[in-house]
Amino acid sequence: MIDPKCPDTITPVIELLEGKWTLLILRDLFNGLHRFGELRRSLHPISPKTLTDRLRLLEENHIVTRTIFSEVPLHVEYELTDKGRRLQPIFAAMREWAEQPCPTAHTAELQEAQA
Amino acid sequence: MIDPKCPDTITPVIELLEGKWTLLILRDLFNGLHRFGELRRSLHPISPKTLTDRLRLLEENHIVTRTIFSEVPLHVEYELTDKGRRLQPIFAAMREWAEQPCPTAHTAELQEAQA
Repeated sequence: MIDPKCPDTITPVIELLEGKWTLLILRDLFNGLHRFGELRRSLHPISPKTLTDRLRLLEENHIVTRTIFSEVPLHVEYELTDKGRRLQPIFAAMREWAEQPCPTAHTAELQEAQA
Repeated sequence: MIDPKCPDTITPVIELLEGKWTLLILRDLFNGLHRFGELRRSLHPISPKTLTDRLRLLEENHIVTRTIFSEVPLHVEYELTDKGRRLQPIFAAMREWAEQPCPTAHTAELQEAQA
């Protein structure tokens, strides 16, 4: 059970994170990418429109800030807010899960190999 | 930084979880739902095809098992595997994030209200 008393606590978080690309964009922001072009290259073949839409959604939810640098050439940088940085444990939990050995699957594979 | 030595550890996990509906399906499985019809009702307006596709992907990745009960009426139940249950800390981290107060946003709101 996630939380029997209040199963819906996490639904808005899931709805924020679940769209295709959003978790990958956050991964890149946690990895230190800031510029639209950097994100676009990292997330190839994401379309500029989709990347813009996802970043806007994150901005509306106070997860990222968007800063325009009026240099030549003009550029835009995205950065995680404090609220955004507090998502880090979710990514840490994903990494831990990815790094865990999986005895069940491994045992099943072994059994298949031995059959 | 998520993991400077190995930034891509979590990418396959993200790719597994990021499709629309997948996290909501897992939330429901953690909340004790098992039957296809229960999941479909909980996730309204998900289409049966999308729900089937998502569950199949989770099954192929050893996150859920699918059991056919040959009773009348025949029904199918889905259950988290051990590997699937080990995703729980990700959901716990989401809940913790959702439950945290957000001083920055709150302060911004207060400042706006006072302006």
